[in-house]
Amino acid sequence: MAFQYLTNTSLKEARTAFLDALKSSGFGPDTETVPAAESCGRITAAAVYAAISAPHYLASAMDGIALRAGLTFGATETTPVTLREEDFIVVDTGDPVPDGCDAVVMTEDVIRQEDGSVRLYASASPWQHIRQIGEDICAGEMILPSHMRISPSAIGAMLAAGVLSVEVLRRPRIGIIPTGDEIVPPSADPKPGDIVEFNSSIFSAMIREWDGDPVVYPIVPDDRELLRSALLTAIKECDAVLLNAGSSAGREDYSAEVIAETGTVLCHGIAIKPGKPAILGLSGNKAILGVPGYPVSGILVLTEILRPLLDVWYGTAPDSGQTVDAVLSRPVVSGLKYQEYVRVHMGRVNGRLIASPLSRGSGVVSSFMKADGILTIPQGTEGHAAGETVRVKLLRPAEALDNTLVAIGSHDPLLDECADLLHRADPGLFMSSSHVGSMGGIMAVRRGEAHVAGIHLLNETDGTYNTASVRRYFPKGGVSLVECVGRTQGLMVAHGNPLGIRSLQDLTRDSVRYVNRQKGSGTRILTDYLCKTEGVSSRRISGYDREEFTHTSVAAQIAAGTADAGMGIYSASRLYGLDFLPLCTEQYDLLIPDYAIGLPMVQRLLEVLRSDDFRQRLKKMGGYTLKNPGAIRRHF
Amino acid sequence: MAFQYLTNTSLKEARTAFLDALKSSGFGPDTETVPAAESCGRITAAAVYAAISAPHYLASAMDGIALRAGLTFGATETTPVTLREEDFIVVDTGDPVPDGCDAVVMTEDVIRQEDGSVRLYASASPWQHIRQIGEDICAGEMILPSHMRISPSAIGAMLAAGVLSVEVLRRPRIGIIPTGDEIVPPSADPKPGDIVEFNSSIFSAMIREWDGDPVVYPIVPDDRELLRSALLTAIKECDAVLLNAGSSAGREDYSAEVIAETGTVLCHGIAIKPGKPAILGLSGNKAILGVPGYPVSGILVLTEILRPLLDVWYGTAPDSGQTVDAVLSRPVVSGLKYQEYVRVHMGRVNGRLIASPLSRGSGVVSSFMKADGILTIPQGTEGHAAGETVRVKLLRPAEALDNTLVAIGSHDPLLDECADLLHRADPGLFMSSSHVGSMGGIMAVRRGEAHVAGIHLLNETDGTYNTASVRRYFPKGGVSLVECVGRTQGLMVAHGNPLGIRSLQDLTRDSVRYVNRQKGSGTRILTDYLCKTEGVSSRRISGYDREEFTHTSVAAQIAAGTADAGMGIYSASRLYGLDFLPLCTEQYDLLIPDYAIGLPMVQRLLEVLRSDDFRQRLKKMGGYTLKNPGAIRRHF
Repeated sequence: MAFQYLTNTSLKEARTAFLDALKSSGFGPDTETVPAAESCGRITAAAVYAAISAPHYLASAMDGIALRAGLTFGATETTPVTLREEDFIVVDTGDPVPDGCDAVVMTEDVIRQEDGSVRLYASASPWQHIRQIGEDICAGEMILPSHMRISPSAIGAMLAAGVLSVEVLRRPRIGIIPTGDEIVPPSADPKPGDIVEFNSSIFSAMIREWDGDPVVYPIVPDDRELLRSALLTAIKECDAVLLNAGSSAGREDYSAEVIAETGTVLCHGIAIKPGKPAILGLSGNKAILGVPGYPVSGILVLTEILRPLLDVWYGTAPDSGQTVDAVLSRPVVSGLKYQEYVRVHMGRVNGRLIASPLSRGSGVVSSFMKADGILTIPQGTEGHAAGETVRVKLLRPAEALDNTLVAIGSHDPLLDECADLLHRADPGLFMSSSHVGSMGGIMAVRRGEAHVAGIHLLNETDGTYNTASVRRYFPKGGVSLVECVGRTQGLMVAHGNPLGIRSLQDLTRDSVRYVNRQKGSGTRILTDYLCKTEGVSSRRISGYDREEFTHTSVAAQIAAGTADAGMGIYSASRLYGLDFLPLCTEQYDLLIPDYAIGLPMVQRLLEVLRSDDFRQRLKKMGGYTLKNPGAIRRHF
Repeated sequence: MAFQYLTNTSLKEARTAFLDALKSSGFGPDTETVPAAESCGRITAAAVYAAISAPHYLASAMDGIALRAGLTFGATETTPVTLREEDFIVVDTGDPVPDGCDAVVMTEDVIRQEDGSVRLYASASPWQHIRQIGEDICAGEMILPSHMRISPSAIGAMLAAGVLSVEVLRRPRIGIIPTGDEIVPPSADPKPGDIVEFNSSIFSAMIREWDGDPVVYPIVPDDRELLRSALLTAIKECDAVLLNAGSSAGREDYSAEVIAETGTVLCHGIAIKPGKPAILGLSGNKAILGVPGYPVSGILVLTEILRPLLDVWYGTAPDSGQTVDAVLSRPVVSGLKYQEYVRVHMGRVNGRLIASPLSRGSGVVSSFMKADGILTIPQGTEGHAAGETVRVKLLRPAEALDNTLVAIGSHDPLLDECADLLHRADPGLFMSSSHVGSMGGIMAVRRGEAHVAGIHLLNETDGTYNTASVRRYFPKGGVSLVECVGRTQGLMVAHGNPLGIRSLQDLTRDSVRYVNRQKGSGTRILTDYLCKTEGVSSRRISGYDREEFTHTSVAAQIAAGTADAGMGIYSASRLYGLDFLPLCTEQYDLLIPDYAIGLPMVQRLLEVLRSDDFRQRLKKMGGYTLKNPGAIRRHF
């Protein structure tokens, strides 16, 4: 088919047109009656009125005796009143107040006499310790207005008021049709080219959180007729349908055509990034969404389009969520053409809330999982400079951000183990790590944006690690160097070392494809240094400018056969079953600024480093030597 | 049985002892394996690691052609490079990058030639538009630490990383045993003395919100042996058991004895109000809670004791919720002996967040439903004065409080209809009403604590309504009087008027039991005035000092036969099928201060008053005359 051109309609315009069209199409809920006891979280269809009063009778509010208050008038400490047995009735809490009685005196104030009479040393006031009819709710009163979410206590109020069933808005059925020839169900062993279909699971969980009822249909291959028939079925059975994906303009992207055949396409292409190739359409009073295939794009399109649609359905107010001001740790450049969504890590460091941009790839679903917030950059603006204060929409409670230890610096899988041990030790604490290399970590600490930085920086003149760099970048001090681990660096090569690589020199052979770490990382600096001392020209190493950001991602490339060698730590090579040529042992330490060292969560991290659990986990990973992890090597 | 003395252990002490005892008893979760796709909201039992990398192969990130980047070097606008068909392969987004290729050029940049070759006007950089293996997640990386709640995007990350099932903590089974001879299942027509059992429905909904699995057992009468056997069964089947109620020290409160027989009672009586007669016990590693019968007491005991127990189970951090500072509108007096919990209505008025105490009765479950927040008054303090700034724990989003119209003043059921119409018109708006009488409303407006006050105050000298009072209490002006309705006031009497009441004079007969409204209410002032003008001595009316706070609660007493007559509006008498003796028509208006009149939500209320819907609803209720509701009668 011909190349389709996508429009670049602004989100606001597209969404308003879509929601307006749906409203006027009659899109909206019918109602259903459910037992009040099982209605928690549902939305009332109409105002709910009490059928009976609660309490529905005059009830004793105490254990004691019921009587006519008038009989007790004049009773005092010095002039007690004595009542005969026929003048009072013993009642327990909740008992009906007998006819003719208008007060209850509680057990503790009743002095029983041997002849069955009682003596009272204080007069009772009329209606004391009696629960009046309707004290809680009067028959006929409105208990809940329309379109309100039913809470646990509202269930109690309804049942107390004799309302045993309640009319609520039906949950909308949202059909999800996964499409694509290459799409396969989740698998632990997919073939190259297989795209694992996990979007429907993400979308279903989101829809349930928004009180929708997801219906996942079988995967449909890229075939126009099959897609059309699947869409027709879903339209019949559901209130809204998501076609995922095929919403772009490629050779086999049939979504727009098929939607046009079964209804109307209102908009194809929205000025948001990720999420641009979305399609908004309708068929009768059913909503149809073409959702892009990349998971981050899909999550954003559902958040920006489907959630407001559910608000229209329920007649509830859009939940715009909590937003906070935060200082941006790195610049974010955005095109003028789109409204852009940037996932950010957040944490409170040195009194300021810091937001660090995460990966912006729309295929990187883990960026959403790790994100603490979303920074929205409006269409027509170019982004933000580092250090700028920006408004961020929170994805986690603000409180959690105050208890998040922010680690920025060199990557080592041991940081993840620390995060796990820290959170196990104190479930109120979290740790977020950004991998920006040792130099990135030093700069983050200098700017007051990290509690901890992992570093391993060789001083070429004397072969020591870290102290020289710290002295250079913190001439006035203000930081501590905390001992962590020694670790073995070396060349990772495929299992069995098929190319027979024995030295750095071997990397210059034509047949060897190298994969490197990014500039500024300690491992890159080490590699540059080793090449220099061994007289190897790095320019002659093919792939020396192919950069990965972690030890594991270098190992992953070699394991998959897209590269033959890369520098990294032993634990990463072991994880992937690679062969390993040890080249040196280096010191990996934690740099901790004075503004952070006294924080309970940082002290807790040092305890983790000193723990047996930590030692055992690292032993299992291999390639580490531990002397006194958690000890302060030096304060600068 | 003998009278049992309850201890008055502080909440903190009791809770710590209980949780510590449970922890050392081995109380805690086993784990279960669930499909990752269905794990949303569950808590990870252990850290989750990626089984495969995502992407698991080198994938094209674009529709275009795959090639070796080296072939394109030197291509510019003026010196294009031409590639033969065998030098490139057409790929779609997501396709594997063929062996030997290390770059993708997107379709838009490829100029196709007639002979099948393509021309490129820019060089490709190595690895451009290629998703590296592990770009999202590397095999072996930690995806989620232990004891983390699984989010929709985490489901995506797990499935992408080949993790198809995940070990999570089992939900704790919480048994609920309702007890008591007088307890009956929810009914629309209970007999006097029947106590409707709705606590188990409230508790179940709360437990589900806290990720527990409630198990409700049949109602057990007040019989020691039956209770014991029910408890033994529940202990065997559940992780924690709630006995509700029988936890106090009355004649038939067996809970403490029965818990002691099957395990250990750690504490009987906690220094909280409501909630004092709680029992904390355990049997082996099973928790047992004696929960007081009043619903508010029960909700508080579950919140303060059971929820922390679930945090211990899951190893999650306690969620202390959001707290805010607010100005207290009325004094709250508290005993020194207990930590007291006061439910409050909240709203932002004239720039300040105002907290108004709701009913403190522990049987008033509607107070919890209506509450926007909880004010905790610590043990050993005497409460707070009006105007004091207090810290309140929010039960609703802070944002909702900014959009809540605060009505304080005279009661009329039409206010509930306004609240419903307002919320239907704009689901982002809420309205809360406190019934404190006309004078209470005027004072609230004077103190800047209400947006609107319903008033109906007769000027005895000329028979006009409201203007004279407003002039007296607002000598400097600053308020508007907005027309609402005329309404018929009169005497409500039982259906058929069995006592033949014809006038106020008849109320002084010995056989007539009157029920009055509270002092300061417009209706009370009207009644006092009518008695005076008709020469009726109110002191001779039996029950003249029995006070109710709303028209409906007065009607409810008469309908139930606990009183014979009361003054009120026609719509209330009609709701209960009472006979009605009209005495006068009065003007019920809304007093709106200048600081509120311009607010969009107040303007929206005026629109509601002017609407047909409002007119129709009031017509149905009866007893109202509407001229120009919503019109500003006068600005002062």
